[in-house]
Amino acid sequence: MSQPLHAIQQVLDFIVEIEKLKDVHRKTRPVGLERFENSAEHSWHVCLSALMLHPYADKPVNIDRVIKMLLIHDLGEIDAGDTIIYASETPENKQAEEQGVKRLLALLPSSVAEGYLALWQEFEAGDSDDARFARAIDRVPPLLHNLNGDGHSWRKHDVSKEMVLRVNSRIGEGVPALWQLLQRQLDQAEQDGLLRSEQSRSHE
Amino acid sequence: MSQPLHAIQQVLDFIVEIEKLKDVHRKTRPVGLERFENSAEHSWHVCLSALMLHPYADKPVNIDRVIKMLLIHDLGEIDAGDTIIYASETPENKQAEEQGVKRLLALLPSSVAEGYLALWQEFEAGDSDDARFARAIDRVPPLLHNLNGDGHSWRKHDVSKEMVLRVNSRIGEGVPALWQLLQRQLDQAEQDGLLRSEQSRSHE
Ligand SMILES: [Ca+2]
Repeated sequence: MSQPLHAIQQVLDFIVEIEKLKDVHRKTRPVGLERFENSAEHSWHVCLSALMLHPYADKPVNIDRVIKMLLIHDLGEIDAGDTIIYASETPENKQAEEQGVKRLLALLPSSVAEGYLALWQEFEAGDSDDARFARAIDRVPPLLHNLNGDGHSWRKHDVSKEMVLRVNSRIGEGVPALWQLLQRQLDQAEQDGLLRSEQSRSHE
Repeated sequence: MSQPLHAIQQVLDFIVEIEKLKDVHRKTRPVGLERFENSAEHSWHVCLSALMLHPYADKPVNIDRVIKMLLIHDLGEIDAGDTIIYASETPENKQAEEQGVKRLLALLPSSVAEGYLALWQEFEAGDSDDARFARAIDRVPPLLHNLNGDGHSWRKHDVSKEMVLRVNSRIGEGVPALWQLLQRQLDQAEQDGLLRSEQSRSHE
């Protein structure tokens, strides 16, 4: 096989391999559906969310970089699996994800793979404006799933409003006005009984 | 509600509404899975496919525009439904899709929605280099599903190699070397009996 065809075959192998992300299941359900979301459709959803929300970012972001970051941000789950968001993000799991991303990128011709590991690491570190925004947006759809889906995963995992505020405060670092809006809706959700308040919990 | 919060709420409504694409089912199955693919996870998959294949495009493309095009290219299916690829793309269906895209974009603040209808139309028209490449890539994953999945949808719909060549020839317009490679694999698939040849069909 000629060199370009060989390189393209490597990309096709990558395309087939990453398809496994369609079989990694998350903890929330898309609004209106009775099944859990998978990480591939989630990745599409956060990309479009970022595209439409970036005018409201706290700091100017390079939306094209952000979208690439979000397209690949969950690839590590293919080997490491998805983890529950209210469990701490362990170093072991992060390491397993990074190994997984490296394995997938190694399927590609090196000229094509170039830069994506660094982009994935930048997302994970969350230190740049682009990464901070991307990580803020990544948290939005699961909140919307609960807010518009009767608090399904909140109630299932006995989550309090304080836990949601803690885990999702990074939304405020990326898009303050969005966080302000969502906090109001969380107050309402608590009043509606979709979320348990810490207080009512400790008195049980 | 203040003006910015009102605008952000409009974007959130859009984000929840487009989630319905996760419930639009396609005609092929992801490799290794026993269920049909949905158009949301497909959209993610074609975006990453385009990202990794664009170095092999026939004409230079603006990959950032291509990715945005592919993120939104199937949104019309939410109202119109997915159509079988081997049925002709009727003007009625295309019109229903365009109406659907307009309905969704109308949920957004106009400053945010700006440009996306034109981008969707550009994809549909397929006349620009970016659109030609995007449309080529859109055809790749279903071929890979069949090539790596025992020709499942080909056999189910009694598809011949000639039909596959006809319907997918646009891959050659966007990425000639990729089409060259895939044609070889289609020859092999025909030999392996995953695809019917026209000849054997007409003699039945
Ligand atoms: Ca498509």
